[in-house]
Amino acid sequence: MPSVDLNSDLAEGFGIWHLTEDEALMDIVSSANIACGLHAGDPEIMAKAFAYAKSRGVAVGAHPGFPDLWGFGRRRMPFTPGEIERLVAYQVGAAQALATYSGHRITYVKVHGALGNIAEQEPEVAVAVANAVKAVDPSLVVLAGPLGAQAPATRDAGLRLAAEIFADRGYTEQGHLIPRSQPGAMIHDPVAAADRIIAMVQSGAVITAQGTHLPTSIDSICVHGDGPKAVETARYVRERLEAAGIAIAPFAP
Amino acid sequence: MPSVDLNSDLAEGFGIWHLTEDEALMDIVSSANIACGLHAGDPEIMAKAFAYAKSRGVAVGAHPGFPDLWGFGRRRMPFTPGEIERLVAYQVGAAQALATYSGHRITYVKVHGALGNIAEQEPEVAVAVANAVKAVDPSLVVLAGPLGAQAPATRDAGLRLAAEIFADRGYTEQGHLIPRSQPGAMIHDPVAAADRIIAMVQSGAVITAQGTHLPTSIDSICVHGDGPKAVETARYVRERLEAAGIAIAPFAP
Amino acid sequence: MPSVDLNSDLAEGFGIWHLTEDEALMDIVSSANIACGLHAGDPEIMAKAFAYAKSRGVAVGAHPGFPDLWGFGRRRMPFTPGEIERLVAYQVGAAQALATYSGHRITYVKVHGALGNIAEQEPEVAVAVANAVKAVDPSLVVLAGPLGAQAPATRDAGLRLAAEIFADRGYTEQGHLIPRSQPGAMIHDPVAAADRIIAMVQSGAVITAQGTHLPTSIDSICVHGDGPKAVETARYVRERLEAAGIAIAPFAP
Amino acid sequence: MPSVDLNSDLAEGFGIWHLTEDEALMDIVSSANIACGLHAGDPEIMAKAFAYAKSRGVAVGAHPGFPDLWGFGRRRMPFTPGEIERLVAYQVGAAQALATYSGHRITYVKVHGALGNIAEQEPEVAVAVANAVKAVDPSLVVLAGPLGAQAPATRDAGLRLAAEIFADRGYTEQGHLIPRSQPGAMIHDPVAAADRIIAMVQSGAVITAQGTHLPTSIDSICVHGDGPKAVETARYVRERLEAAGIAIAPFAP
Repeated sequence: MPSVDLNSDLAEGFGIWHLTEDEALMDIVSSANIACGLHAGDPEIMAKAFAYAKSRGVAVGAHPGFPDLWGFGRRRMPFTPGEIERLVAYQVGAAQALATYSGHRITYVKVHGALGNIAEQEPEVAVAVANAVKAVDPSLVVLAGPLGAQAPATRDAGLRLAAEIFADRGYTEQGHLIPRSQPGAMIHDPVAAADRIIAMVQSGAVITAQGTHLPTSIDSICVHGDGPKAVETARYVRERLEAAGIAIAPFAP
Repeated sequence: MPSVDLNSDLAEGFGIWHLTEDEALMDIVSSANIACGLHAGDPEIMAKAFAYAKSRGVAVGAHPGFPDLWGFGRRRMPFTPGEIERLVAYQVGAAQALATYSGHRITYVKVHGALGNIAEQEPEVAVAVANAVKAVDPSLVVLAGPLGAQAPATRDAGLRLAAEIFADRGYTEQGHLIPRSQPGAMIHDPVAAADRIIAMVQSGAVITAQGTHLPTSIDSICVHGDGPKAVETARYVRERLEAAGIAIAPFAP
Repeated sequence: MPSVDLNSDLAEGFGIWHLTEDEALMDIVSSANIACGLHAGDPEIMAKAFAYAKSRGVAVGAHPGFPDLWGFGRRRMPFTPGEIERLVAYQVGAAQALATYSGHRITYVKVHGALGNIAEQEPEVAVAVANAVKAVDPSLVVLAGPLGAQAPATRDAGLRLAAEIFADRGYTEQGHLIPRSQPGAMIHDPVAAADRIIAMVQSGAVITAQGTHLPTSIDSICVHGDGPKAVETARYVRERLEAAGIAIAPFAP
Repeated sequence: MPSVDLNSDLAEGFGIWHLTEDEALMDIVSSANIACGLHAGDPEIMAKAFAYAKSRGVAVGAHPGFPDLWGFGRRRMPFTPGEIERLVAYQVGAAQALATYSGHRITYVKVHGALGNIAEQEPEVAVAVANAVKAVDPSLVVLAGPLGAQAPATRDAGLRLAAEIFADRGYTEQGHLIPRSQPGAMIHDPVAAADRIIAMVQSGAVITAQGTHLPTSIDSICVHGDGPKAVETARYVRERLEAAGIAIAPFAP
């Protein structure tokens, strides 16, 4: 029986503020990407998320971003690749310690927001992320797109890549995400989104907006943790995958 | 030949601001306590300090404090013992990762400023610090006073304690630091300070302001990293110890 | 026709995070207390709130708190009365400027959270708040309890006090809020809460949990801006007041 | 007797950290640009600087920058012109309030670091700064270069411009600062720097690196507040100006 991972960006609050229904989503996904305190997340939220993930058998990854609480890590901040290495290392270490404290263990890293976007587009940033992960713990997997800049950078560093596709985003002919400013960037209909990702998993390919199949391994599907319908959508995607005979299981338990 | 460690709180800057002459002091001390980003320190300063320490054979420890850049961790912040556990774990993990990134390795933890003061006075805070260290990495040593609340909490957690005395502070009959508001708190004369710590190391005892000897192991002497005369004083203390036949070496290389 | 003001703490978000439905509540209340950026609020949220308040004829006040985004200003932070003066002055000035920028004008100050609690209980903190307001702009009104420490401090400073009661909190025989840890602190039934505040406004007295009437002017009623039922409760309170023949109007337009 | 203002960026510390010898420099300059808390400065440092400036007859201006303590406001942060308006308004208001609290009064605004650089180069940012100042208080003067983008934006907004030249920077044929990456950007020899600014003030022109005279009013000369020789250099510049018969006086007392 084929299987795939379902991941979501969680723990995206700060103090009194919350964005994601962490427990409801961890009852659905198999991997939780945990914000590390610089764009969102604080030690309380992080420790609580790690403990709940452990209790539910959900794998956990560090989800480092730019130090930008105000902009939630969604703005490109002026850091050099070298500074990005240290920023990522710092956050991965903090997340590892709090996961261990909570009885769990970080098994992968996925970079957040604007940092994630530029890591997929700019080789020197992708290399910086890979360098940081390798230096801190080379057993960590990097969760990233199969066809962006992170895939070769991860492999060149001798790290394992887990290939991720997005449930609700359209892909260009090159296998990149269609920018949000362009038509086709978002797939709003959950039925269409589920049909498409099932087709991708079954065919072992990214399917572009024009229908081209770009063969690749697919290890994980990202469903959004924020938004009013996040829980409902995640549950629907999981049910459709299971109904299609695809089991949900972490890529790095 | 007897030996003792010389430690100093370093990397106490943030961005453009600096407080400590890290490189000059790491040419003198054998252990560097590195601020972890919440009361001082940023990934750039931390990574640079770890790399220089490695190059000089200086041992490095995590130096976590309250999240209070404005107050430099010197104010008691309203955190519960449980929250302190998570704060310490977060910072130790971040420091471990950046030390590893820089080719070095954290071997101990010393808590900073107001957090250090209350950990020495309040058993539940001392236990919180020990819990955090034990959970993250039980091979880490705790650097703390031999006669305060941290000593039993550290030992009860099964962790190794490295006993620290201060070069320029007076001690009460209980072996605690004389509060700064009281006479005798500070020993301003470097000659008197050096005479006294040599006597303490040679006799294996904390010597109180009244001259009482409180027998204890002494693993490390703390010299201040900040202040206009920090480098000069540290160098003098080291020279006096060496002249007395006491070698300077890390307690946890 | 008698009238009273209805106020609510609003703009309590930061970046992507939100706590209060600012626009829905400003369609109900007559005065909006606007967070000033140190415990919540950022220039974008503040400016937007001021502009909407202006468009709806809602009066606006500065709502300064401790610099503690993580704790949302609900923790007592270690600041001296003198430092509190500067913290309040800084925030009032920032709010005045952004209100002016948005075409509106700050007419009052109400201190937030833990700072508000200690200002009601500790005369030296109440004096610090009054000093700050007087120094920055003596035409500003202070919105505070009629029977706490701020009332005499405000009057002694030559400032106008607007007396505030809480819609859903019980009062001691001294006219102070019953601490949240004690029974009777919260009035959960909206009908009972509305009955009681109408009785207070009509009788010109704080009515204690035991039924004692403590005569005082009442200028404003505080309804909560956060919580899932905030809008519904505020609307109900307003409707009940109006049905009782009490108009809703700002105390300082 | 001709006169010119001497200004310096001061109060550039945060908590325990300091960069500028505020009191020594305020004994030399006639105008102090005070950091407003987002890239440097805190309410304590600000209030102290305003009080000392008042005691010495030194004019004070708000010196707003990007919200970037870590980068000291020297990095271009991703804010839109509209967001920059609110950021500047917030900081000017905070500074006005603390100046008033300290018995002084803000009479001008000069934008800091990266924000200052882009305001001189990009008309929409220059307009944003002018909009903010005009909205908050149209009596405030804008201190900026005579030949950059801020000069027309300031005048178009109906605000008064005070034209500033830098004591130690070279100018292009267009009257802009030579970028620091190019030769001639810095004038390291204080004698040459003093000769040149005296020539500029006496001739009423910016003198370019090639010797071209670009006629303009000159209201103020900026001397650096940071760096080990800041006080010495500022004193030398003042002495040379006075020896040349040019009095030092604020442009906006």
